Amino acid sequence: MSSSADLRQLTESHIEAMAFESRQPRNLYEPMAYILRLPGKRIRPVLTLLAYQALSGRNPAEALNLACSVELFHNFTLMHDDIMDRAPMRRGQPCVHIKWDENIAILSGDAMFAFSMGLVVKDFPEKAAILATEFTRVGMEVCEGQMEDMDLAAQSDAGIPEYIEMIRKKTAALLGGCLSLGALAGDASPELAFRFRQYGELLGIAFQLQDDLMDAFPPEGFGKQVGGDIIENKKTYLLLKARELAGESQLRELDALSQPGTDPAAKVQHTLRIFRELDIENLTQALIRDYFGQALAIGEELEHQSRFAPIKAYLTEIAGRKV
Amino acid sequence: MSSSADLRQLTESHIEAMAFESRQPRNLYEPMAYILRLPGKRIRPVLTLLAYQALSGRNPAEALNLACSVELFHNFTLMHDDIMDRAPMRRGQPCVHIKWDENIAILSGDAMFAFSMGLVVKDFPEKAAILATEFTRVGMEVCEGQMEDMDLAAQSDAGIPEYIEMIRKKTAALLGGCLSLGALAGDASPELAFRFRQYGELLGIAFQLQDDLMDAFPPEGFGKQVGGDIIENKKTYLLLKARELAGESQLRELDALSQPGTDPAAKVQHTLRIFRELDIENLTQALIRDYFGQALAIGEELEHQSRFAPIKAYLTEIAGRKV
Repeated sequence: MSSSADLRQLTESHIEAMAFESRQPRNLYEPMAYILRLPGKRIRPVLTLLAYQALSGRNPAEALNLACSVELFHNFTLMHDDIMDRAPMRRGQPCVHIKWDENIAILSGDAMFAFSMGLVVKDFPEKAAILATEFTRVGMEVCEGQMEDMDLAAQSDAGIPEYIEMIRKKTAALLGGCLSLGALAGDASPELAFRFRQYGELLGIAFQLQDDLMDAFPPEGFGKQVGGDIIENKKTYLLLKARELAGESQLRELDALSQPGTDPAAKVQHTLRIFRELDIENLTQALIRDYFGQALAIGEELEHQSRFAPIKAYLTEIAGRKV
Repeated sequence: MSSSADLRQLTESHIEAMAFESRQPRNLYEPMAYILRLPGKRIRPVLTLLAYQALSGRNPAEALNLACSVELFHNFTLMHDDIMDRAPMRRGQPCVHIKWDENIAILSGDAMFAFSMGLVVKDFPEKAAILATEFTRVGMEVCEGQMEDMDLAAQSDAGIPEYIEMIRKKTAALLGGCLSLGALAGDASPELAFRFRQYGELLGIAFQLQDDLMDAFPPEGFGKQVGGDIIENKKTYLLLKARELAGESQLRELDALSQPGTDPAAKVQHTLRIFRELDIENLTQALIRDYFGQALAIGEELEHQSRFAPIKAYLTEIAGRKV
């Protein structure tokens, strides 16, 4: 069995070997090389390789093109999301639409998406239909999730169920898809692949809720700015839950704090006070535990049907690093 | 055998049945319904259906999802190209990025592309790998062509071979791909499908050169504004050929005419005069005849290997409408 570190290294080498930086036209391919070289943990392709290995017992390198397809797809969504979010920087470097321009970021992203689709069907011709169908299902969900995220931002009465469904599609669907694609390539039945997918989606939701939580209540020595989401009026689970539980005066205060021109430091301070008054940290932690618990229950079932332990170990390691 | 008019009607009904206008989230799917309802001849899906019929002899309706995949792909490229070109209108209606906004046009286009890939593999599972590979090859070429078009616009020393290769990728590759996809689905060998593709690409290049020609030398009663490409300094075959043949003073004049602030009417008038001095109309017509001739030669060969006559008749009809 290959370790997750080995699989990450395999992925890195495979992406490097695609040599996007030396393809023509340069303005189309250099941005791909650039965004793929920004530091990242390659969680998604590693998950695909682990799932392939868990099911087939074969050499995970056989699924490298498939694994890289999800990484390229992920980076295509980052390139386009950064345009839509008007984000200047990603992982400490200028975004593609800043370093080049918006047209190049649109088109290079499109090409990356097309390229990723080609990788999906490359090495498992007899399973191409089922893999491509799963891949495009995930692709549609990610687009729907991103649109729902933009819709939620513009909506005054956003609800928690809509928020959870949005993060399921926008971020968790791809984690689930990485596992289901690897499992399907490794000869899983559709039913078993579906359980892999559910496991990944539940963990993905838990991870996103952890991200939400850490923005407001970071662990000791976390180092990142506190309250970035609060300053941006981002509708996270914490804010939506607080608005659900808030009394009239707290709601009025939250509304006032969300007005443009509010001093950022005061905004963070008072929002956090209201979060504390309403026990938002514990409520969020309870929900995260609930999603982890649901995932673990599926994981136990999957341990009887596949070599699942390395997947569980890898995701537990990621979860630990995140909290 | 179904007529091209029948196939167009089948395509329209099949697209309508996808009911994008009633899918959620609305901001993702309504722009798809909108752009797909702009008037259009559905040339690409009809070609796919004709090729499928020519090879398989079976009911072309079997290939409707595949045929619609190329139409959705085409409309995805239009949606994104309109953003990149800052185009306000398409076929008399506001572009998606104007009617909605740029973010919605980016994301709705992405989703349309994902959806089109799902259609490619839907009905021919045993051929999914070969169809998806061909589809993504075309997708990459179209992206490369669009980038080369943007690169050429910014380049002072653009050459004719680069221009021809750009239009081959940007517009002809998809016409070729429509035929090769239909042929592959209809059990063509890879070699035969490649000849279908070449036929479509050669005609696609001829069609684009016809478009270039008609902008400067429209047929009687054409009704469209003359010289739109000239006013925009668009590097068409006509301009590139004129620059290649121009003497020193003509070249100086062309350079002067391309400066910002030149009166549009004078720009068109003087550019056309130089085109006439250099016999550009006849030279372009000769090149168009050459590409048509190359396509016809392949067509003759294909008539021995498939029920090719309806494809030839349909494309001749289109070519006739265009000149």
